Amino acid sequence: MAEEIFQNDTIKQILGHYRKIWAIGHAQSVLGWDMEVNMPKMGITERSTAQGELSVLSHNFMLEPKFVELVEKAAGEELNDYERGVVRVLQREIKIAKAFPPEFVRELSEVRSKATMAWAEAKEKDDFKKFEPWLDRIIELSKKAAEYLGYDEYPYDALLDLYEEGLRTRDLEPIFGKLEKELKPILDKILEEGNVPREHPLEKEEYDIEAMKKVNLKVLELLGYPLRTRGRLDVSPHPFTTGFGIHDVRITTRYEGFDFRRTLLAVVHEFGHALYELQVDERFMFSPIAGGVSLGIHESQSRFWENIIGRTREFARLIYPILKENLPFMSKYTEEDLYSYFNIVRPDFIRVEADEVTYNMHIILRYKLEKLMVNEDVKASELPELWNDEMERLLGIRPKNYKEGILQDIHWAHGTVGYFPTYSLGTLLATQIRSYILKDIPDFYEKVANGEFAPIREWLREKVHKYGSVYPPKELLERSFGEGINPEYFISYIKEKYLG
Amino acid sequence: MAEEIFQNDTIKQILGHYRKIWAIGHAQSVLGWDMEVNMPKMGITERSTAQGELSVLSHNFMLEPKFVELVEKAAGEELNDYERGVVRVLQREIKIAKAFPPEFVRELSEVRSKATMAWAEAKEKDDFKKFEPWLDRIIELSKKAAEYLGYDEYPYDALLDLYEEGLRTRDLEPIFGKLEKELKPILDKILEEGNVPREHPLEKEEYDIEAMKKVNLKVLELLGYPLRTRGRLDVSPHPFTTGFGIHDVRITTRYEGFDFRRTLLAVVHEFGHALYELQVDERFMFSPIAGGVSLGIHESQSRFWENIIGRTREFARLIYPILKENLPFMSKYTEEDLYSYFNIVRPDFIRVEADEVTYNMHIILRYKLEKLMVNEDVKASELPELWNDEMERLLGIRPKNYKEGILQDIHWAHGTVGYFPTYSLGTLLATQIRSYILKDIPDFYEKVANGEFAPIREWLREKVHKYGSVYPPKELLERSFGEGINPEYFISYIKEKYLG
Repeated sequence: MAEEIFQNDTIKQILGHYRKIWAIGHAQSVLGWDMEVNMPKMGITERSTAQGELSVLSHNFMLEPKFVELVEKAAGEELNDYERGVVRVLQREIKIAKAFPPEFVRELSEVRSKATMAWAEAKEKDDFKKFEPWLDRIIELSKKAAEYLGYDEYPYDALLDLYEEGLRTRDLEPIFGKLEKELKPILDKILEEGNVPREHPLEKEEYDIEAMKKVNLKVLELLGYPLRTRGRLDVSPHPFTTGFGIHDVRITTRYEGFDFRRTLLAVVHEFGHALYELQVDERFMFSPIAGGVSLGIHESQSRFWENIIGRTREFARLIYPILKENLPFMSKYTEEDLYSYFNIVRPDFIRVEADEVTYNMHIILRYKLEKLMVNEDVKASELPELWNDEMERLLGIRPKNYKEGILQDIHWAHGTVGYFPTYSLGTLLATQIRSYILKDIPDFYEKVANGEFAPIREWLREKVHKYGSVYPPKELLERSFGEGINPEYFISYIKEKYLG
Repeated sequence: MAEEIFQNDTIKQILGHYRKIWAIGHAQSVLGWDMEVNMPKMGITERSTAQGELSVLSHNFMLEPKFVELVEKAAGEELNDYERGVVRVLQREIKIAKAFPPEFVRELSEVRSKATMAWAEAKEKDDFKKFEPWLDRIIELSKKAAEYLGYDEYPYDALLDLYEEGLRTRDLEPIFGKLEKELKPILDKILEEGNVPREHPLEKEEYDIEAMKKVNLKVLELLGYPLRTRGRLDVSPHPFTTGFGIHDVRITTRYEGFDFRRTLLAVVHEFGHALYELQVDERFMFSPIAGGVSLGIHESQSRFWENIIGRTREFARLIYPILKENLPFMSKYTEEDLYSYFNIVRPDFIRVEADEVTYNMHIILRYKLEKLMVNEDVKASELPELWNDEMERLLGIRPKNYKEGILQDIHWAHGTVGYFPTYSLGTLLATQIRSYILKDIPDFYEKVANGEFAPIREWLREKVHKYGSVYPPKELLERSFGEGINPEYFISYIKEKYLG
C-alpha cells in the first residue's frame, strides 16, 4: 500500500464528503467530452439540462454548511503540505461559489449560451452587429463578477484570479510590457533578414485523413502517451484534453485535410496537457488536488511539448520516417523542409495559427482590450476599431473583416474574460523549463532525436506534474525552479532560435 | 407549444425534484455507455467509484422524505393517465429503494462485481469450481432480496417483478408449460422433415470489418434510424442499446469477422429497442415515464424487428443488394440463400446464438433452475448437472463443458436472477404484434420488401412506443391489443413458417 498522505481527521471527513462532488465533476467531464466527440446533434436537448442540474448539485454540495465548516476547521489545524493543498483549493472554490448569487449565475449561464450562438452566427456572416449587444452584456456581467469576487487594485484582477490563482495585473504589466517592447524589433529583424520562411509549400499539401490519423497515433506512441490503457485520441471541432481522473485522460484533434502541421502539432500540444494530468501523484485520487493547478502551468506543459520539443530539428528528424511512410507527398520533402514548415514566422491575423514569435502579440492585444472592458467604460461598439488599430501597431497588419479580427475567438462569447493571459504565461514558462531541463539533462536534444522521452517525462513529473494542485502556481514555480514567470528566457530563446 | 400534460400541482412539484434524479440517471447512462464503448482499460479505477457515488446520490434523492411525501400526496389526488403513470413508476422505485437496507445494497454490489470477475475467469478456464462459491452467494442474496421485497406466493415472484412489473410465476407457468409441450414435437418434425437448413456455408464466410460497418449503417438508414441526429452505432463487446433521453438513443454491435448475420441481426434487434425509446411522447421528457415500460415489452420491439421483419424473405430481398455491393463473397449466393442463412434451425448450446424455434427452450431451462434456486434449497454445486439434464431433455443435446453449459451467460454473476423470462415474453409478444399489425397493414410484407418502414414505425409508435411507461405492461397490452401474452400466436407462427 502507498503511504497514507491524508492523516488529519478533519481532512479525512472533508474528503469523504468531497467524493460526491468529485463524482459529479467526473460525470460532467464525461458528458462534456461526449458532447464534443460523439453526441448526435439533437442530444443537446437533454444534455444541456443534465449538465445544468449537475452544476447546481455540485454547487449545493460545495456550500453545504457542514462541509464549509469542516474546511474552516481544518484551516486552523496542523496540516501537512497535501492537506494544506486540499484546504486551499476548497477555500478558493467555496469562495467563488459563494461570491455569485444564484440569479447572477443563472443570468450568466443564459447570456453565455445566447452570446455563443450569436457569436457563431455573427462570425459566419461576418456581421459584428449581431454579436455587439451580447458583448455589451458580457462586459457588464464581467464587471459585476469582479465586484462580487472583490479585488485590491483593479476589477480585472478578480477575473484573472479565476483562471490563474493569484495572478494580478501588476504581475502581467512588466511581463507584457517587456514582451511588447522587445518582440517587435526581433520580429522586424527576422522578417528583414529573410532566413526564416514566411510560407511553405507543405501548407498546401492535402492529406488522407485515415493516413494522418495513423501518423498522429504513431507520434503519440513515440511520446509515450498510454493509448488504450489510460488515454484515447478522438476527433472534435477544436482540439482539447480532458481528464476523468488520473487513469483516463483523453485528447482530441481535428482533420482539415491539408496543412498537416495543424493537426499534428495540436496532438503534440494536447499530449503535453494530458501528460500533466496523467502524472499527478496517484495518492491524490478523488481529492481536490488531483489535477493540474492552473491554466498557465497547464499551458506551459502543452507548449513545452509543442514548441520546445515539437518545433525542433531533432523532432522533425525523429518523426520524418513516420510521415514519409504514411503521406505520399512527403517523399518530395526533406527533414529540413519539415523543420522549416514547423517554424514559419509570419505576422498573420489568427491567434490559434500564430507562430512562436508573433503568438504573444495576439495575447497582448486581447489583454489590452480586456483591461479596457473591465476596468474602463469601453463599449462593445468601440472594440473592433480598437482591435484593428492595436493589431496594426503590434504586427503591422490590419484585419479586413471581423472574422479575422475581433470575431475569431469564442472566449468572450463564453464569458471567459481574463483567460487569454494564461496562454502567454504558459508559452513563456515553457521556455524557462527548457533552460532548467537543459541543466539537468544536458543531452536533452539528443534524447529528443532518439525518441528517448522517458527521462523527459520523468523530469517533468518530478518538477511539476506529481504535485497536482498541492501548491498554488507561484509557489510551485518558486519551489521547483527558484523563480516565477520571467520573460527574459522567452526573448533569449526566440533570438537564439530565429536570429541565430 | 405542445399541450401541457402535467397539470396537477403536486405532480409539477414532484417533477421539479425528480429532475436531479433524472440528471444523475442521464449521467450514469453516459458513463455506462462510455465504459463499454470508449473507456481505456485503467479508467475503471475512477469510473467505478464515480458510478457508485452517483448511485448513492440518486438513491438518497429518491428517498428524501419531502419527495416521498409528495408522491404519496399525489397518489390521493385526481390525476390524468400521465400523472398516474408518474406516481406509479415513482412508488415502485421508492418501494424498491426502501426495501433494501444500505448494508445489503453494499454487499450485493460487492458480491456482484466479485462474482462477475470470478465468472469471467471460470468461463475462460472452463472451471465451474471458481464460480461455484459466488453462485451460492448470489442465490443467498437473491433469496434475501425476495424477502426484503415481499411476495404473495413464491419468493421468485418478487424478483420477476423487478424486471417485469407485475409478472408472477402464475403468469409464466401456463406460458412456459404450453411452450415446452408444443415446441418439442414441432422441433422434432422440422428436423425430421429436413426442409430447414441446420447449417449454412454463409456461416463460415469471413468479412472485412470496415465493409460490414458500412452494411450495418446502410441497413440502419433503410430502417429509419436517425443516425447523426439522434443516434449512433458503435462497437462494444456485447451489443446493447442505451437511451440518454428521447433525443439521443445509441446502439452498439460487435464484429467477429465471420458469420455476418450475428452482427447484422444484432443491429436490427438493437434498432428495435432504440426505436421504442426514440418514439416515446416528447412531452414526457425529464419525467419518470419517458422510457420503455419493461424489459419484456422492450424485447418484443427488438424481436419484432429482428425476427418478424429481419428474418423474412422480403427483408432478405431488400438488403441483398447492400450485402452484394459490400461483401465480395455474396456474389456466390442468392437472395434465397440469404433467407435460409437467416433461418437455420439447429438445437445448439448457446442461447444468444439460438434460432427462433429453439430460443425459448433455453429460457425454459433457466427459468426452471431459477425457481429451484430461489424457491427451493438447491446448491450451486448441483446446478451444472441439473442444467445438462434439462438441456438434454429439452433439446436432445448435452453440453460437454461448462462454457457451453451453465457458464455461458453473465446474468447470474450480475445477480440478475429473474431477468431471463422477459426474453421469452418479448419473443412471444413480437409474434402477437405481427398478427395485430397484419390486420391494420395487410400489405405489411410488401412494405418490408420495398423498405417502406415509415408506416410500420408509425403503427408501433401509436400502439406501444408513445406511451412510454404511462401504463404498466399488462395494462398497455390490454389497452392496445385487448389481450396479454398468449403463446398461441408464437406456436402458430413457428408452425406456419417452418412446417409450412
